[in-house]
Amino acid sequence: MTVGESGQPLATLPKPDLQTLERTWTDALATVSGANQQLDLSRGKPGVEQLRLSDALETTIAGNYISADGTDTRNYGGLMGIAEARDLGAEIMGVPAAEIMAAGNSSLNLMHLVLSTALNLGLWGDNRKWRDSDSIKVLTPVPGYDRHFVLCQHFGMEMVNIPMLEHGPDLQRAAELAAADSNIKAIWCVPKYANPTGNTYSDNTVEALAALPGQAAADDFIVLWDNAYAVHHLEQPGDALASIRDFAIAAGTAEHIVQFASTSKITFAGAGVGFVASGAKVLQSLVAHLSVQTVGPDKVNQLRHARFLNGRVTEHMAAHAEILRPKFALVDQILTEQLGALAIAEWTKPNGGYFVSLDLLPGLAKQVVAMAKESGLVLTPAGATFPYGVDPDDRNVRIAPTFGSLQELSGAMEILTLCVKLASARKLLAQS
Amino acid sequence: MTVGESGQPLATLPKPDLQTLERTWTDALATVSGANQQLDLSRGKPGVEQLRLSDALETTIAGNYISADGTDTRNYGGLMGIAEARDLGAEIMGVPAAEIMAAGNSSLNLMHLVLSTALNLGLWGDNRKWRDSDSIKVLTPVPGYDRHFVLCQHFGMEMVNIPMLEHGPDLQRAAELAAADSNIKAIWCVPKYANPTGNTYSDNTVEALAALPGQAAADDFIVLWDNAYAVHHLEQPGDALASIRDFAIAAGTAEHIVQFASTSKITFAGAGVGFVASGAKVLQSLVAHLSVQTVGPDKVNQLRHARFLNGRVTEHMAAHAEILRPKFALVDQILTEQLGALAIAEWTKPNGGYFVSLDLLPGLAKQVVAMAKESGLVLTPAGATFPYGVDPDDRNVRIAPTFGSLQELSGAMEILTLCVKLASARKLLAQS
Repeated sequence: MTVGESGQPLATLPKPDLQTLERTWTDALATVSGANQQLDLSRGKPGVEQLRLSDALETTIAGNYISADGTDTRNYGGLMGIAEARDLGAEIMGVPAAEIMAAGNSSLNLMHLVLSTALNLGLWGDNRKWRDSDSIKVLTPVPGYDRHFVLCQHFGMEMVNIPMLEHGPDLQRAAELAAADSNIKAIWCVPKYANPTGNTYSDNTVEALAALPGQAAADDFIVLWDNAYAVHHLEQPGDALASIRDFAIAAGTAEHIVQFASTSKITFAGAGVGFVASGAKVLQSLVAHLSVQTVGPDKVNQLRHARFLNGRVTEHMAAHAEILRPKFALVDQILTEQLGALAIAEWTKPNGGYFVSLDLLPGLAKQVVAMAKESGLVLTPAGATFPYGVDPDDRNVRIAPTFGSLQELSGAMEILTLCVKLASARKLLAQS
Repeated sequence: MTVGESGQPLATLPKPDLQTLERTWTDALATVSGANQQLDLSRGKPGVEQLRLSDALETTIAGNYISADGTDTRNYGGLMGIAEARDLGAEIMGVPAAEIMAAGNSSLNLMHLVLSTALNLGLWGDNRKWRDSDSIKVLTPVPGYDRHFVLCQHFGMEMVNIPMLEHGPDLQRAAELAAADSNIKAIWCVPKYANPTGNTYSDNTVEALAALPGQAAADDFIVLWDNAYAVHHLEQPGDALASIRDFAIAAGTAEHIVQFASTSKITFAGAGVGFVASGAKVLQSLVAHLSVQTVGPDKVNQLRHARFLNGRVTEHMAAHAEILRPKFALVDQILTEQLGALAIAEWTKPNGGYFVSLDLLPGLAKQVVAMAKESGLVLTPAGATFPYGVDPDDRNVRIAPTFGSLQELSGAMEILTLCVKLASARKLLAQS
């Protein structure tokens, strides 16, 4: 065992030891880089073993295209989705089916629809439209999901960062800001196994979020509740997430909570069913807007999904967990073995979801991502987990362990941890 | 045989004969109305026999989700669509696959995307955006497709009617208007078996349309080419439609032609694949815009369709024609028998598509639609085939014969022709 891997914080080492380690790790990285490999930790995608769990989707129709209420799913119409698909949404989201629209293959598309409707047409059938404001601002807990940020940028909405704490976003800060500025119109949330931090919001946080629209200066403030990992546990029972719907009904804000989910990481990524849930007025506004641009969702695919999944989502997700648990365990094991005692990084140990969030010494994220790339490992671009791609401390790296094999994951984590150690040693040497 | 059904123009009958007929037809309508029926000629949907032609879609995957180029269609990504789906688009549209994006289940959604992109982001990667104009106007050949009109209204685009002539829209008029007003940004076309007139544009019309962007005052003028019935012939060979792409390449306007098609009325309405074709810059702009709102189309459904249809679209559409031909023949037969000699209506005899367009004496369309409704027959609302729902002559009625059985169609046409005769007789009596 080399010095520095024996369990001593890197910053406490004498300079010559640090120099020795720097050379050792440089050589080690050169060795593993020589393998001419193509490794990738950036892909938040299910792996092929997971996809195979849903291959039986193709056999659920078996010549019977008629939904439970008699709808011929092969024909046009039905913007709210078929009844059994909305039931599936209820099973995933914990919201009554009557409050859910089952749609096409993309919940991102539904988020785009909600923002576009809020901006241009209004969500409640009255005169409230975001575009009538001087400017439009959205609260963005960070680190967060890059596609939420891209949507805001697309619509010209200014993002205001809110720190992510252990139990969810800093709601005190969010409430102060929202109460003081009527241009603040929304907050993004990934409440369960958050992307990328993996934490689940506490009951108090959920209750405070449900109350937020009532405290905001804007009367058209909404909570964007992207429950992308609602049933994506690694262990049973998974984290419990309180019902924001129930809190919102108690707080009188149900029409200001918009929830999203999809089967993308339950069955087939990109060929699943997306869901949006909210109050009756919001759903009505979304249907009116949708009716301009489509005759209806793919109801055959909805029927496939409902027949395949209804009543057995938990069981199905347990099979996913069997595949994913060793991958997340391997990531944590290698991070612990390689970085655990060096005091140069912190990382999350999520109970579900798709990501591990790794925080480095400040100022090293871009450098580590670049070093990894030179060594044949693709990482999510540094900064991607922050609005405008700007991580103010340049320290967050998102690890997506799901897509590759355990062997690839092991090789990738070896390079990543070597890059982190090397960049950290060089930083400390430069400071010494 | 009653007077007036012997073959004499209604307007030439003496008043007492007209009065007799009016009473006869009133009684006849009362009799058929008593049946408490629910008939419908408004639904431009395939019938169940047609849907059954594609039930084998469900068995094309058979456990093999990998597309020809090795893509796992179950996973995320691929905004342009898989290669074999683009090949299918090429077979339907007569455009090289490289110029086609294969997308989700709705070509209407792609039209929305194109208008939204032209308006807010621009189609060519430069500064040209429609929203920078004082106002935005779109040329709308009439009668036409109501959903095109609704899209324009949604985006606040003013519609300027262009008369539909036998060989397509009045292009001389369109060119004069477009050359004189730089706020005119587009023209809608359903070039084959047009909705609702059923006519196919002549080669000269297609060539003139390809030249139109070069003549328009606006440098961001586009032709919206909704080829919804590209392969939907009733007879073989069907109408031949010239390639607007080839004319456009010759005219240097290829980046100003945007073509649409879908499999909605080839396989399953609402569960098919939509296509958009244009120049490379336009496709690039559309992909950029799409990337904000979705991770990709449903590639599994694309693969299903490609495996089921590629190389046999013509054969498959011939099976549709077998089902549809008797329905269109029955409509023409009843119109001819009931109205042929009375000189109170004109109608189209399309070689394909989904509609028959019926023109009444001016001022009677709303009345006939209302009378039919009272008698248990739903018709497309009068005016729906015109922008803002306003048929300036109040005479056009759209007949959709595809959805119901021959028996239902016969009953519906009996009521419709009775209403037309009765309304016409009353009008003539009021004038006499």
